[in-house]
Amino acid sequence: MPRDGRRQNSIIFAEIKQMGIVDPSLADAFSKIVGAANVVTEAEPLQRYAHDETEELVFLPDIVLKPRTAAEISAIMRLCNEHRIPVTPRGAGTGLSGGALPHLGGVVISTERMNSILEIDERNGQVMTEPGVITEVLQDAVKEKGLFYPPDPSSRGSCFIGGNIAENSGGPKAVKYGVVKDYVLNLELVLPTGDIIWTGANVLKNSTGYNLTQLVVGSEGTLGIVTKIVLRLIPLPRLDRLLLAPFRSLEKAGEAVAAIFRAGFTPSGLELVEVDALRITARYLDSTLPVPEDIEAQLIIEVDGNDPEVLMKDIEAIAVLLSDLGAGEDMLLAEDAAQKAELWKVRRRVAEAVKAAGYTIEEDTVVPRAALPALIRGVKELGKQYGFQAVCYGHAGDGNLHIRIKKAGSTNSQDDPLIVESLRALFRLVKELGGTISGEHGIGLVQKGYLDIVFTDVQLELMRGIKAVFDPNGILNAGKIFDKTNQ
Amino acid sequence: MPRDGRRQNSIIFAEIKQMGIVDPSLADAFSKIVGAANVVTEAEPLQRYAHDETEELVFLPDIVLKPRTAAEISAIMRLCNEHRIPVTPRGAGTGLSGGALPHLGGVVISTERMNSILEIDERNGQVMTEPGVITEVLQDAVKEKGLFYPPDPSSRGSCFIGGNIAENSGGPKAVKYGVVKDYVLNLELVLPTGDIIWTGANVLKNSTGYNLTQLVVGSEGTLGIVTKIVLRLIPLPRLDRLLLAPFRSLEKAGEAVAAIFRAGFTPSGLELVEVDALRITARYLDSTLPVPEDIEAQLIIEVDGNDPEVLMKDIEAIAVLLSDLGAGEDMLLAEDAAQKAELWKVRRRVAEAVKAAGYTIEEDTVVPRAALPALIRGVKELGKQYGFQAVCYGHAGDGNLHIRIKKAGSTNSQDDPLIVESLRALFRLVKELGGTISGEHGIGLVQKGYLDIVFTDVQLELMRGIKAVFDPNGILNAGKIFDKTNQ
Repeated sequence: MPRDGRRQNSIIFAEIKQMGIVDPSLADAFSKIVGAANVVTEAEPLQRYAHDETEELVFLPDIVLKPRTAAEISAIMRLCNEHRIPVTPRGAGTGLSGGALPHLGGVVISTERMNSILEIDERNGQVMTEPGVITEVLQDAVKEKGLFYPPDPSSRGSCFIGGNIAENSGGPKAVKYGVVKDYVLNLELVLPTGDIIWTGANVLKNSTGYNLTQLVVGSEGTLGIVTKIVLRLIPLPRLDRLLLAPFRSLEKAGEAVAAIFRAGFTPSGLELVEVDALRITARYLDSTLPVPEDIEAQLIIEVDGNDPEVLMKDIEAIAVLLSDLGAGEDMLLAEDAAQKAELWKVRRRVAEAVKAAGYTIEEDTVVPRAALPALIRGVKELGKQYGFQAVCYGHAGDGNLHIRIKKAGSTNSQDDPLIVESLRALFRLVKELGGTISGEHGIGLVQKGYLDIVFTDVQLELMRGIKAVFDPNGILNAGKIFDKTNQ
Repeated sequence: MPRDGRRQNSIIFAEIKQMGIVDPSLADAFSKIVGAANVVTEAEPLQRYAHDETEELVFLPDIVLKPRTAAEISAIMRLCNEHRIPVTPRGAGTGLSGGALPHLGGVVISTERMNSILEIDERNGQVMTEPGVITEVLQDAVKEKGLFYPPDPSSRGSCFIGGNIAENSGGPKAVKYGVVKDYVLNLELVLPTGDIIWTGANVLKNSTGYNLTQLVVGSEGTLGIVTKIVLRLIPLPRLDRLLLAPFRSLEKAGEAVAAIFRAGFTPSGLELVEVDALRITARYLDSTLPVPEDIEAQLIIEVDGNDPEVLMKDIEAIAVLLSDLGAGEDMLLAEDAAQKAELWKVRRRVAEAVKAAGYTIEEDTVVPRAALPALIRGVKELGKQYGFQAVCYGHAGDGNLHIRIKKAGSTNSQDDPLIVESLRALFRLVKELGGTISGEHGIGLVQKGYLDIVFTDVQLELMRGIKAVFDPNGILNAGKIFDKTNQ
């Protein structure tokens, strides 16, 4: 049920200050900066930039610009800053929190033409890239040199590395290798004023001034537009082993997750898929993956490294441990590349499958990992109480649980009051369990109404203060993360 | 040559705005907050708080307060904020950039009584601690549970974990395990206004709002006073192997560092000690460590893990690689715990030894690791040009090189114009090589005059802007990092 954003602005975004509009003379100026071929103003091609992967939100921009360089973005920003035009940066549009949506109209800056990997520095184990490179393309390019960039969101085949920076993306390997923030050394950033800075230096350790790099990572395009990215890389592990472990009890699965670490193992993947999600996905993909009758969840455990004997010893030791902790006898050790690929395919496409089954609202909660069973039980309880159905899956090793819900009798959109009420209850539970409301998707547009559950006014005022330092006129991705712009 | 700070304030810190003074009524109010026993105002005990490990700077505070709780610090901050009293937070006083020095007088808040480890959460692999816990005490406490907190600055036997947060400390294990910032999940922080916040959540992944946690790590006590710290822990590796490799050529040693990573190894330590530093230290410690005649540097390579065979295979493969790359035949594989301890003792005490030999100025440069040989050569060249002697040692795996210099005919203090001129040339070289001026010691008081070499005005204004958001009256650790407070 697409909605037109600007029609609704007066209601939803009443607190946003009056922004300028893109009049014809400005459109000409933009065209001179990026070249006429790289300006989109026609209604139909604009549609492509009106949505991302966040439910069914649709907000048409006035104009889309496709610059090639930081200098072009700087010139655009200066104009927009002067005329108070709202600017929304956009990568591949695969976001799940509406961060790239131009909900105030204005200018969308698409980084799609800034798609070069600038340098793979093998001696230092670093790569410098532009933001419009597809994450998997970057991973494959460094892999050819024996190097590894681990963060791999499910959308890695289509998302841009720049968007990953904006949302501080994670993915299944985060449990061993960390998330995007753990790999970003330095960023070239165009500020809303048009100034261009580097946020740090291309070094592995840095205690020189405030960590602007880490402030920008995960700031969802509200502080500046990233135009170059320097990432550290690590040696590529050559081998992995994959184990699928069914559990009759969610609690047992949760305990097993904690026990694996306590036994001294650090898996390179430790995923949990609740059985409902598993069945929906196996059906959706017509998969050969066995889903036993009487289970509550499956764990997927991956270990990686370079020594086949050590890996086999480790995965076997983990299997014994899991068996002692209540895993079913039908644990499956993936035998070959094809079986591993099938297993990961099922895991990676859970979101798509359950969405197709009507679970359109996706939440991205994160709790300390030992609290995961309590969170899943709690979600089911809340479902009974508020009348929604939920399926859960995610990165159990980090406590990062994706929850997809659907509710009969509601529009299943993020601004349905029935959904809002359910989500507030869910996020209060997450907070009580020591967690927070987004582990890797960001707040963007759809979660910002819930920030009061996890932040105090003092925390929010600090964040708004920082936003104002970078963006005094509040033009860049205005109204994202925070409820109001800074005035 | 101790100097009295306040006498010099008018010259050095002319730009600092006029601060209030601690009059007797305020001293009474402070006493009511923390208890009379936890207030220091007598000249002699105050001396202890007038210096740290940074050369010979001495600045007497007016008063030292030793609170026990965040609430007490909050009450102190409210008073100081109201009366514009400068506040300097202090850990163990082991800093190397003067960050804990009360150069404007005023109040020192010592965290020495906030020294409890609050909870070791084995299920989630986390520890919650107060800031006044000695780093090694914390490491030992979690080790007993089979858990590992890797960052281990040379001063780990005396420094406080709170100070490590302030400076984003590293140490030799950073090459594999990262620095302090890679372990901090959440911080309780008392703001200069007296408000108390948490900066994040106790979770491994977080894309909820700006990353205040990472902004505070390495901010050198200028944004708030950390009162609780939540760190993630990892499984403790049970074994390690240590190799000492002499190199006739610095360049060859530098190439060997890069080659180790390119061959797919990630050592848990990769240190370089230039031969001059090595000889001074071996003499100073009366060590049994062999220092061959004709070498330029030694590399110390450590690998760690849980499988003795794999470790031995790895360290032997590294030895073969190093031999091919020009390491001397007299490589030494440490045979037992005693020999390993001796080797690390020598490495850990280099700074102390060369300081005793008159190299009193320590710099903490960091470059991309492949640039290390060029940096060391450049340092020697600059030495000839500017008439100083330098010894180099440090964390070669991260490109973090400690450089200690002495200069005949100068006072060998950081404000000697001859030293300043030499250091400016050195830092320009570091910048040219793609590096920056502090890898793990911070800017504090002694490096702030050099920030213009690595930062533009735009970058500095952003940092000052952030400082003003947290500390509108500029009372907390005023005049550190930046040349002036925010006005």
